[in-house]
Amino acid sequence: MRQTSLALQVETKGRGFYEITRGLAQFVSNAGMAEGLLTVFCRHTSASLLIQENADPTVLRDLEAVFSKLAPEGAPYLHDTEGADDMPAHIRAALTQTQLSIPLIDGALALGTWQGVFLFEHRFRPHVRQIALHLIGA
Amino acid sequence: MRQTSLALQVETKGRGFYEITRGLAQFVSNAGMAEGLLTVFCRHTSASLLIQENADPTVLRDLEAVFSKLAPEGAPYLHDTEGADDMPAHIRAALTQTQLSIPLIDGALALGTWQGVFLFEHRFRPHVRQIALHLIGA
Amino acid sequence: MRQTSLALQVETKGRGFYEITRGLAQFVSNAGMAEGLLTVFCRHTSASLLIQENADPTVLRDLEAVFSKLAPEGAPYLHDTEGADDMPAHIRAALTQTQLSIPLIDGALALGTWQGVFLFEHRFRPHVRQIALHLIGA
Repeated sequence: MRQTSLALQVETKGRGFYEITRGLAQFVSNAGMAEGLLTVFCRHTSASLLIQENADPTVLRDLEAVFSKLAPEGAPYLHDTEGADDMPAHIRAALTQTQLSIPLIDGALALGTWQGVFLFEHRFRPHVRQIALHLIGA
Repeated sequence: MRQTSLALQVETKGRGFYEITRGLAQFVSNAGMAEGLLTVFCRHTSASLLIQENADPTVLRDLEAVFSKLAPEGAPYLHDTEGADDMPAHIRAALTQTQLSIPLIDGALALGTWQGVFLFEHRFRPHVRQIALHLIGA
Repeated sequence: MRQTSLALQVETKGRGFYEITRGLAQFVSNAGMAEGLLTVFCRHTSASLLIQENADPTVLRDLEAVFSKLAPEGAPYLHDTEGADDMPAHIRAALTQTQLSIPLIDGALALGTWQGVFLFEHRFRPHVRQIALHLIGA
């Protein structure tokens, strides 16, 4: 049994979904384990993680519309230090995931056929996001 | 330290909550570990996981009503390839969990007295859902 | 590779956010591992976990307002055995996390600069909440 870690950086161009499945798969492949558990951790409170369909891009556009309603800009928030998208970003992060763990099956991520892993950037402006990866197995 | 994995199948009869606690407990019991971590991963984007009260079934009926409001059928979604429940299923999955990890205490799942683990089927029609289980410990 | 577990108790004074980051960091520090994975598991269905900004307290007040809207007291719930905050507590728990896993980086939790881990108490009255901690690594 062994473990390995990686600091993954994701450059975003502002609010939206950024698929990171390939980077995760490569990290897992490099480790050469047959069985194990990958953990993906987003080190921010204004960006988060989501597993969603990566086939039809309209799914992501509909999801964005849903979160825009659940966490609207322009609501009377107490916290708006960094602008109109500040508090909505925190709400979006609270309603999605900061961390995901994915088992391996036969040395590859156990993702289903249509599942992709996305970094969900909630801020309007581009950011460099830090993702901590941890893999344990054999 | 060792690890073991299992592909669990859950047959659903359409939208609703399907308790899988017993199957998880059996997998853990068979492994015979005193200390460890169980990870449950749902390999779909139109079904998800939830830990909720398994004592009073009205909790689940109220939860279903909440998610019906948060992700209504009949809203003007861009993505409706598979029918009226297609995009609502993705939204429900985004707002709940694709993965859960549960530590062991004295060889059993650390679930509280009233906690049950449920597969939350979001589609109207019956499906066979694939759940990947991973257990690591000693 | 080794693992260690702890039963953490958190006394709440009723609905609100209770930061537990320090308790988690101490557990990790005591274990003396350089690399590993901490899992935090809330053994209740009327309290949950959340990673959020721990710098400006208005973030938490805005979040509380959001969840009060998403899960209002006084809605016509079927399940109200324990009072007006009973079903809202279950809904808040369903929309946030029962479990969080955080990798270690150089022996410390991989939390970002502004990230704190909070127990989110959903009931009005004070409770003693049981949190199961599990750490695996080396």
